[in-house]
Amino acid sequence: MERIPILQMGDYLLVTIQVDMHDQLALTLQEDLADRISRTSAKGVLIDISALDMVDSFIGRMIGTISGLSRIMDAQTVLVGMQPSVAITLVELGLTLPGVMTALNVERGMQKLRKQVESS
Amino acid sequence: MERIPILQMGDYLLVTIQVDMHDQLALTLQEDLADRISRTSAKGVLIDISALDMVDSFIGRMIGTISGLSRIMDAQTVLVGMQPSVAITLVELGLTLPGVMTALNVERGMQKLRKQVESS
Repeated sequence: MERIPILQMGDYLLVTIQVDMHDQLALTLQEDLADRISRTSAKGVLIDISALDMVDSFIGRMIGTISGLSRIMDAQTVLVGMQPSVAITLVELGLTLPGVMTALNVERGMQKLRKQVESS
Repeated sequence: MERIPILQMGDYLLVTIQVDMHDQLALTLQEDLADRISRTSAKGVLIDISALDMVDSFIGRMIGTISGLSRIMDAQTVLVGMQPSVAITLVELGLTLPGVMTALNVERGMQKLRKQVESS
């Protein structure tokens, strides 16, 4: 079955979204992620969307759900790699991703997570 | 245009292959990677194939090319996340990936790269 890989790097999990999300794939990702957070006691989740030229409300909602899910499981979520055009579209659509931290790239996202974890 | 994202983490670059590779995508990846290695002076490249259920001779050759390309540009390549069934198929096909380092997962691959870079 098609699924999005979740890579572990120390205390953090990295998810790179490259393909068009559809319902089943999004559900599988959420389940896999919840499972991995609980098994690995991960403290943070990085979602990289640098490969996406377009983010619609479906993906926006999915990112919100993953973020909420991680928070309940005591992990922070950072969305990284957003293309400028995607940011413009999101704002125009009114999708402001409330409660989701963002960072320019994976490295900065990782730094942000480390700071959050240290200060909590 | 469709392309595979290359993520930078410190001195290393991470490529997660999730989609079926075809000629143009493989060529674009090689060009992007060569460009990124030269721009970032990366010391290593991690190629994650945990999402692939099947690796054929085309992907095998592409991995070999990327590895050779990186070596010329003074970066080491580690292939990570190979599924057991993929390993069996590769051996059965006689594709032994000469000159390509492998590791079980991204974390171990990163450790391997660090050791290689320190000892060189």
